[in-house]
This record gives sequence, structure tokens and C-alpha cells, in this order.
Amino acid sequence: MFTLVMVCDHFSHLEFCERERAVRFSVISLTWDAPFGDAHAPLLSEARELGFEGFEIFFESPRQFDVVRMAEAFAAEGLTPTICAVPNRDRDLSADDPKVRAAGLAYLKDAVDAVADLGGQIVGGPLYGDQVFYGGVPAQLHDAPTRARKRRNVVDGLRQLSEYAGSRGVSLAVEPLNRFETATCTLAEHALELVDEVGAPNLAVLLDTYHMNIDESSIPDAIRATGSRLGHFHANENHRGTPGSGHIPWDATFSALRDINYDGWVVLEPFRRRDNPLGLSQALWRPAGPGDNDDLRGGLEYLQQFSS
Amino acid sequence: MFTLVMVCDHFSHLEFCERERAVRFSVISLTWDAPFGDAHAPLLSEARELGFEGFEIFFESPRQFDVVRMAEAFAAEGLTPTICAVPNRDRDLSADDPKVRAAGLAYLKDAVDAVADLGGQIVGGPLYGDQVFYGGVPAQLHDAPTRARKRRNVVDGLRQLSEYAGSRGVSLAVEPLNRFETATCTLAEHALELVDEVGAPNLAVLLDTYHMNIDESSIPDAIRATGSRLGHFHANENHRGTPGSGHIPWDATFSALRDINYDGWVVLEPFRRRDNPLGLSQALWRPAGPGDNDDLRGGLEYLQQFSS
Repeated sequence: MFTLVMVCDHFSHLEFCERERAVRFSVISLTWDAPFGDAHAPLLSEARELGFEGFEIFFESPRQFDVVRMAEAFAAEGLTPTICAVPNRDRDLSADDPKVRAAGLAYLKDAVDAVADLGGQIVGGPLYGDQVFYGGVPAQLHDAPTRARKRRNVVDGLRQLSEYAGSRGVSLAVEPLNRFETATCTLAEHALELVDEVGAPNLAVLLDTYHMNIDESSIPDAIRATGSRLGHFHANENHRGTPGSGHIPWDATFSALRDINYDGWVVLEPFRRRDNPLGLSQALWRPAGPGDNDDLRGGLEYLQQFSS
Repeated sequence: MFTLVMVCDHFSHLEFCERERAVRFSVISLTWDAPFGDAHAPLLSEARELGFEGFEIFFESPRQFDVVRMAEAFAAEGLTPTICAVPNRDRDLSADDPKVRAAGLAYLKDAVDAVADLGGQIVGGPLYGDQVFYGGVPAQLHDAPTRARKRRNVVDGLRQLSEYAGSRGVSLAVEPLNRFETATCTLAEHALELVDEVGAPNLAVLLDTYHMNIDESSIPDAIRATGSRLGHFHANENHRGTPGSGHIPWDATFSALRDINYDGWVVLEPFRRRDNPLGLSQALWRPAGPGDNDDLRGGLEYLQQFSS
């Protein structure tokens, strides 16, 4: 199965592969714990047993795992690695301070190196920086000059990053966040503008149903407008609980993914239950579901019914 | 029309009034400008001309209007006043500092006085305080003891406020906000728990489709679970644009309101376009629609089709 999928990656223009085209499901480390480190290697077999084909590392802190051994663990489980990069206020391509921008670029290059060394090809996330709610700073009004300045910084940083990622065989995917988490990129339209302006062949868009539910006029329309520039996908319920337990229009969402012939990853990132401090730090003030692995399997199976 | 409505308010058990039962539409001052003051009296005739029967004052700052003259303006237009109270970090029933709690109570009593003096009967909003995103402070983790302490403060404050409001013939409605705007009350279930614990006959729940879209599992189910304890309602698009321009399930929402025989106010609070600094301060980083009065009329007419 894994081999077939890799073949399709390389020869997706061939008709015999067209018939095999389908999204593949992955799950993020954050669902269990953060930051991700060596001690979490057993999560890979849990993910595989639950039925996932990929595993996304929430790359929040400096690398806390031995990349050679972790690459072996991925290979042993037959799981494809991807990385979700998480800029913060100290490593931010949009920042005014050139040191913070340099730290942002260095951090993102490290994420590129990590995924390449693990045998993977995708780094996604809010690569532009400008973290608001989770940045530990008060929300601020961004006036037009501030927005223009940040935009220039981001375009410049993404150009350098794309070039570096290309040299390592890695693709990037820029994720719009909801209005509370950033002011720089809140719509598919914003991400597409960034991607167009940077103009790198390995820079695409990452869409997340959780953020789209807050800011887009229509989730399916945003997916269709992104079209072939969709490089990665996060499938989250409106309240970040188990997929199927909220009101995201999953049928219309997967129909739109089929309309654009998306055959990439669909990553689940449910937040877990109230007694998990991680949940609280993610502004989850009540249980989103039982939050155990059975619940996670249920979420995967629920989504799989729309994807075939 | 205004007279008939008042009769129905007082005798809604009478069968002849049952036939007249329907929601009534109102619009918030915030849609045009803030803070609301004497200079905004002409907005009342704009609202009436657009087809609204009520006008909600976004009571953000110390009162900036002459209540006698404003009451005359409401009466002249035949509009019913309601007030949306907006606690902040300096006036907060949930605060540890007793002075801040006292300021919160004094502010809310002033809102009660204002609506009573204007000839109205409802003060709604996040009366419990605990403002996060718009509070100008970084988001913080609320551990269990913090949550319990805030809850006790809020229940105590709402008991005093309800008693005072009752003496002025005013009803209160507690509004859950989304997870980024507060940590104290993010679900209808949380508001119902508060209302039950306070146990005052004039304390009910205010639901807002914008916040429900982020945090509830199902908007119609949350409305039905609130049932007769729903005292006020805010009808906002998922992205705060004109109703009908996003993906809130309006048909199912109004069906649920009919199921529970809700015959109160439905208040529109769209944010306006990008060149309005107010929009930026509300984390609206792009246009939600043209944002003029024609657009607002369109939103009202769109919702009216579901409410008859």
C-alpha cells in the first residue's frame, strides 16, 4: 500500500494511477502530547494501529529527538512523516527586528532539515509568523503600514526558505489561521496571494477546516479556489473535538477535495480532554470528547466514509 | 405595532397573542460606530427605515448620551431599546480584586438603569467578565482553582445584579463567547449552569450564532437545550459579515428558535469593512462585505425569510 502510494506521487499523470487517487490520513503528535521528543516514538505504532498512514510532528520546540532513530521508527511503521512548523514571537518571518526574522528563517530551515532527514517532503503551518493569541502578547491593531511591512518581510523570508527547501526536496504549505491567532493571513485568498507573490514552485497552501469555519464564507468554495495550489490539509472539527462530533460539513468538504483532485494528506489534529493541560493552553475550556485512542479511531473512520 | 408587541410581552399566554408570536429584529449601534453617544441619535431613524423594530446600544464606555433625550428619540422612532453590556478587565465580576468586582457591578447596574430609563427591559452580554482576547492582556491558562474562584465571584455578582435589575423591571441575559474571548463561559451549557446556580427569575441566556459556530457541537441543538431560558439572541454570520454571506445554517437556526417558541429579539451585529478601524480592533482583517446600509438591509431581509 505504501509503495503504491509513493508510485502515485511520482507518476500521478499516468492514467492507471488516476484510479488510485485518494487522500491519505495522518495524525498530529499534538493530539497526544507536546513537545514531541524521543520518548514519543511509541506513538508511531499507535498511529499505525489506529489506521493512519502518516504522522505529523508538531515542531514546537527545538528538536528533541534523534533524527536517525526517529527516521528508522517511521520506516519500521511504514508511516510518512510531515512537519507542522510553529513560528512564535521569537522566530517570526514577519517581525520588524531582523534578529527575530533571522531566527524565524533558521527555525523553519531546521524544520525542513528535520522532515528531509526523516524521509518526508512537507513542512506546513503558519510559516509567516505573526502569532497573536498564542503569542503571549496582547492583541494589537495592525494598521495598513504595519501590514504592508510585515507582508514584505514574509515574502522575503518565504523566498529564501522556499529556495532552501527546494534544495532538500521539501515542499512548503502556508496555512491561514483564524483572526484571533494571526492578523497576517486569515483566508485561503491571503495564502494564495502570498504563494503567488513568492512564486516558488515548491510553495503551496495548507487549509484547515477549523480556521476556515471561522473566517471563510464557504469551506468548499475556499478549497475549490485554492485548487491545484492546495499542498496540505488539516481536518479539524469546529470545536477541535473528534471529527464528526461537530458541524463541519464533511461531505461537502471532501467533495470539494475530490473536485480539485487533491490526493495529498488529510491530517487530524483533535484537541483532547479537559484534564489535559495542553487542552487548556489551547483555549479549550471544556471536553471536546473522550479524547482517547478509540475516539480518535472513530474520528478517522468517520472521515474515511467521505473520502472514498 | 409597538403597542401590540408590548401587549404580547405581557399576555403571551393568551391564545390571540400566540398567533402573533414571532421574533423581532434589532441591530446594534456597533455596526455603525462606537462608543455610542448623543451624536448617534440619527442612527435610530436609519435603523427604523431599514426595517428594524429594535436598536441595541453597545454599552462600551461610560454613558455618553442624555438618557431623557435618547428615550424620546427611541419613542419617536417606535424602536425598542436593549443594551449589550461589555465588561472589561477594569470592571469584571469574575476578578480576584474586590475593587474590580465592585466596578463591574456598578457598571452593570448603570447599564440596567440606562435601559430602564430608555424604556427598555433587557441587558445582555458577557456579564460575567473575564475578557481575554479584547482585554489587552495575554491569554492565560485558567487552572481548576482559578476557574472555581471566578465562578463563585460571578455567581455572587450576578445574584446582586439580578436583584437590582428586578427592582427596575429589567431582565438579564448571559452570553457565552468563543474560546478566544473568554475562558469562563463558552457554551450554552455553561451559561445555563450559571443561570441555574444564580436562580433569579429575571436571569436568562443570550446565544450568538458567531460564538456558537466556533464552540458548540450544533447550533440548533444548543438553542433547543436552552429552550425557555433563552432571553435574547444575536444573529451573526460565521465571519461577522452580513447575514447570508457566510455558512451559518440560518434555516436550521430559525427552526430551532421556533421549536422553543422564542419570540424575543434577534439582533444583527455585522462588523463593517476594512477601512473602518473598528473592524481592525475586532480582529477583522479583511472586508466582510460592502458594509453600507443597503448591505445591512439585505442581511435583514435575508434573515426575515427564515423567521416567518
